[in-house]
Amino acid sequence: MPRIPAENFSLIAAIDLGSNSFHMVLAKPEQSEIRLLDRLGEKVQLAAGLNAQRHLSEESIQRGLDCLRRFAQLISGLPQGAVRIVGTNALREAHNRAEFIRRAQEILGHPVEVISGREEARLIYLGVSHSLPAAEGKRLVVDIGGGSTEFIIGESFEPQLRESLQMGSVSFTGRFFPDGKITPARYAQAYTAARLELMNIEKGLQRLGWQEAVGSSGTIRTVGQVIQNGGYSNNGEITADGLVWLKRKVLKQSEVDKLDLDGIKPDRRAIFPAGLAIIEAIFDALQLRRMIYSEGALREGVLYDMLGRYHHEDVRERTLSSLMERYHVDLEQAARVEAKALSALDQVAEPWGLQDESYRELLSWASRVHEIGLDIAHYHYHKHGAYLIEHSDLAGFSRQDQQVLALLVRSHRRNIPKEKFSEFSADDGDKLVRLCILLRVAILFHHIRGTQEMPKVQFKAEERSLELIFPEGWLSANPLTQADFEQEAEWLARVGYRISAR
Amino acid sequence: MPRIPAENFSLIAAIDLGSNSFHMVLAKPEQSEIRLLDRLGEKVQLAAGLNAQRHLSEESIQRGLDCLRRFAQLISGLPQGAVRIVGTNALREAHNRAEFIRRAQEILGHPVEVISGREEARLIYLGVSHSLPAAEGKRLVVDIGGGSTEFIIGESFEPQLRESLQMGSVSFTGRFFPDGKITPARYAQAYTAARLELMNIEKGLQRLGWQEAVGSSGTIRTVGQVIQNGGYSNNGEITADGLVWLKRKVLKQSEVDKLDLDGIKPDRRAIFPAGLAIIEAIFDALQLRRMIYSEGALREGVLYDMLGRYHHEDVRERTLSSLMERYHVDLEQAARVEAKALSALDQVAEPWGLQDESYRELLSWASRVHEIGLDIAHYHYHKHGAYLIEHSDLAGFSRQDQQVLALLVRSHRRNIPKEKFSEFSADDGDKLVRLCILLRVAILFHHIRGTQEMPKVQFKAEERSLELIFPEGWLSANPLTQADFEQEAEWLARVGYRISAR
Repeated sequence: MPRIPAENFSLIAAIDLGSNSFHMVLAKPEQSEIRLLDRLGEKVQLAAGLNAQRHLSEESIQRGLDCLRRFAQLISGLPQGAVRIVGTNALREAHNRAEFIRRAQEILGHPVEVISGREEARLIYLGVSHSLPAAEGKRLVVDIGGGSTEFIIGESFEPQLRESLQMGSVSFTGRFFPDGKITPARYAQAYTAARLELMNIEKGLQRLGWQEAVGSSGTIRTVGQVIQNGGYSNNGEITADGLVWLKRKVLKQSEVDKLDLDGIKPDRRAIFPAGLAIIEAIFDALQLRRMIYSEGALREGVLYDMLGRYHHEDVRERTLSSLMERYHVDLEQAARVEAKALSALDQVAEPWGLQDESYRELLSWASRVHEIGLDIAHYHYHKHGAYLIEHSDLAGFSRQDQQVLALLVRSHRRNIPKEKFSEFSADDGDKLVRLCILLRVAILFHHIRGTQEMPKVQFKAEERSLELIFPEGWLSANPLTQADFEQEAEWLARVGYRISAR
Repeated sequence: MPRIPAENFSLIAAIDLGSNSFHMVLAKPEQSEIRLLDRLGEKVQLAAGLNAQRHLSEESIQRGLDCLRRFAQLISGLPQGAVRIVGTNALREAHNRAEFIRRAQEILGHPVEVISGREEARLIYLGVSHSLPAAEGKRLVVDIGGGSTEFIIGESFEPQLRESLQMGSVSFTGRFFPDGKITPARYAQAYTAARLELMNIEKGLQRLGWQEAVGSSGTIRTVGQVIQNGGYSNNGEITADGLVWLKRKVLKQSEVDKLDLDGIKPDRRAIFPAGLAIIEAIFDALQLRRMIYSEGALREGVLYDMLGRYHHEDVRERTLSSLMERYHVDLEQAARVEAKALSALDQVAEPWGLQDESYRELLSWASRVHEIGLDIAHYHYHKHGAYLIEHSDLAGFSRQDQQVLALLVRSHRRNIPKEKFSEFSADDGDKLVRLCILLRVAILFHHIRGTQEMPKVQFKAEERSLELIFPEGWLSANPLTQADFEQEAEWLARVGYRISAR
């Protein structure tokens, strides 16, 4: 994630690799606002290609890549940092997502991130809240995707509660309407399944309350459109009365192919009954009377997030601070380690190929949170810290960010798990090992956690070695530090690096 | 852990399976105090039998079991609950500890618990603080074991900081004096290794401060004794001057067999240099001038803990409350689930063989903490909760307690991991599955988390089935609950249980 302010780009783009559709928006940044230039969407139905072993079929991967080839033309030439691509539920679920991501990145030339359900919820809220006029009070935002449905309650641009449920129009179609036949019993099963999912969150949402319900996503747009065309609402709103009318109409048909309602595009017919059952369950569980539709959605949220990272605030900074607070990190020690790690990085960035700003960012993050696991237990605390980072909902971070950060935390002391670094491409894995070495050295410097003055040290890096040059005589006067580096040399030798201190 | 108050026993006993020695104390409870009747100790050197793969040799297991056979005579006939047996570092480390525990339990007829380093520290402090006269201000307590060394700062009977380091007299002897030869260089290596370990905690200890340093364990007693006999202290204290004198004397010898100092028993010679190096490192790192010796130690702490569980307070209750607070558990929901789970238990305890109070306790604990993982992330939160419970330092709980509790939390929703239950004996595994079913049913009852009035339900259990009988007509009027139990029936069928609701 380079540090070029997004508003310095003449054009920025966001791509959302959804479980049902892929979308792209192109925009021009204008100070802290954006002007949308183009929207594209294609129904890819990636989630339909997930089998019971959660493996994406080659066919569905091809459908996705074909779509991305078309998108690619529009963003060709955009510099790194101007395009952000996020994958959601189908990619969260797919065991072979790495394969898809690799091929997608080749086509697009920009990194693909997979985001968690709650991160998706945060971005949706950002997109929706920027697309609607300011309003008093709280908003409930619902986004029904192909594989998951997100619920957010927020006020102004701030989400206050984010939830993500494993139900979506594509996955429910596969479970309850696999062959395109419609029966009241099947519809009732889909509805009940949705109600059971909703039971987990409905009281929490109601406790917070809202003044207005807003829906985004194609499922909600289509249902709202049909209801409006039937004369049961205006402005594409979904109303409780309209749902009663629409359900009756749908259940009169025996096959999805015959759903010839004014407002449904033929390619949305197959997933229409499942989507309708989910909406009805949401209306009943949350006792809604109406839901307005918003054009803003995940991809717009991604654009505003790109802008916010440089402009008003980077939400990731807030996330890290709250993580440090929550797990009672020794802030002074973290700051000492961070300063030392970054100053070491400055000295070796060139020979070790770590000039990209993203490495600096990662090293700084890892320095700040490397001790959070201590709050769980001292024994194996590096592993507990890694677990927390990998599994927590960290607003603003993609799954891959979390994985890499967790790996650095995992490896900040004792054994460096070589095999985990080799899951990355050789070059990435190598660079991560180098970042890890810098972090470990910075921690050793402050092994006695205190304000003890440490001397200025020169770092010299070569392909597979790091040399630390202390002021004349300092090391022999400080034999404990010397012993520390000797012990460290043994750990690093196991990953093929030589470290020496003199 | 039956609920019979410890003071109702005429005799209670605690056994400490240490890495160097096994100890037993027998005592008579007298209100909230105890009168010690007998102390036994045998040098077993269990830790010396751990190889690089952390496997306990059959030889060392035999040494341990032989010692326990002798102990067993003294506690034969004591009822369940009157004997508590705890294992420390060597058993924490050993991969084949289950084997040792099984055989030890056969001999002793009472359960053997393995406790974490910090739990060990808590119990040591309890033992030491009860053995010393009341004093103003804070105490530092140090206990050098065969495999780990515990540090505690506390005031009166309350520990405030508990640390455990992986260094001990037996393990350091293996690392630095494996063949019984003494050289200044080896001694210096052992000393430096101890200093590096201490660097992790010394600032934290110093920040809190203390008025008095107290040592327990055989290593400290022996060193204090030799220093006193050499004329460098009184009352078995260790003094900084005495250490200087003693180190010089020890380094004049080239072999441990020749350590013929006044106060060392022949069987402690082998581990004496390593123990001395650790003590010297502690004195230097913490800048101590003197350390008094306390007879009270882990086993006495275990006795006082047994008494406290029934008398003044059960520390486990406090641990659970702080866990619930820390991870923001919905307390009302937890209370609802607990009440329902326990009332279901009352109805099925007999047919399902769950009459023992320990099952009731476990079910109540699990009900209270089953949702802690939600604070990490919603996705797979049952797994996060289990991770936290398994790995956190939970004062008052043994490792086995934590493992079983984690398993119930892990299994409270979605798939029940059959294979994890089969790690227990068939009978224990079966009963845990039954507890798990009761927990799940209680949670389903309160799936909609709110104050909704739920009807009185009758539970009927048979060998492999559970029947829920609702008031006439209630279920058909509440189809969501019905659907919930139908879904549950599918999960339970996978572990061989039939559940029906009518």
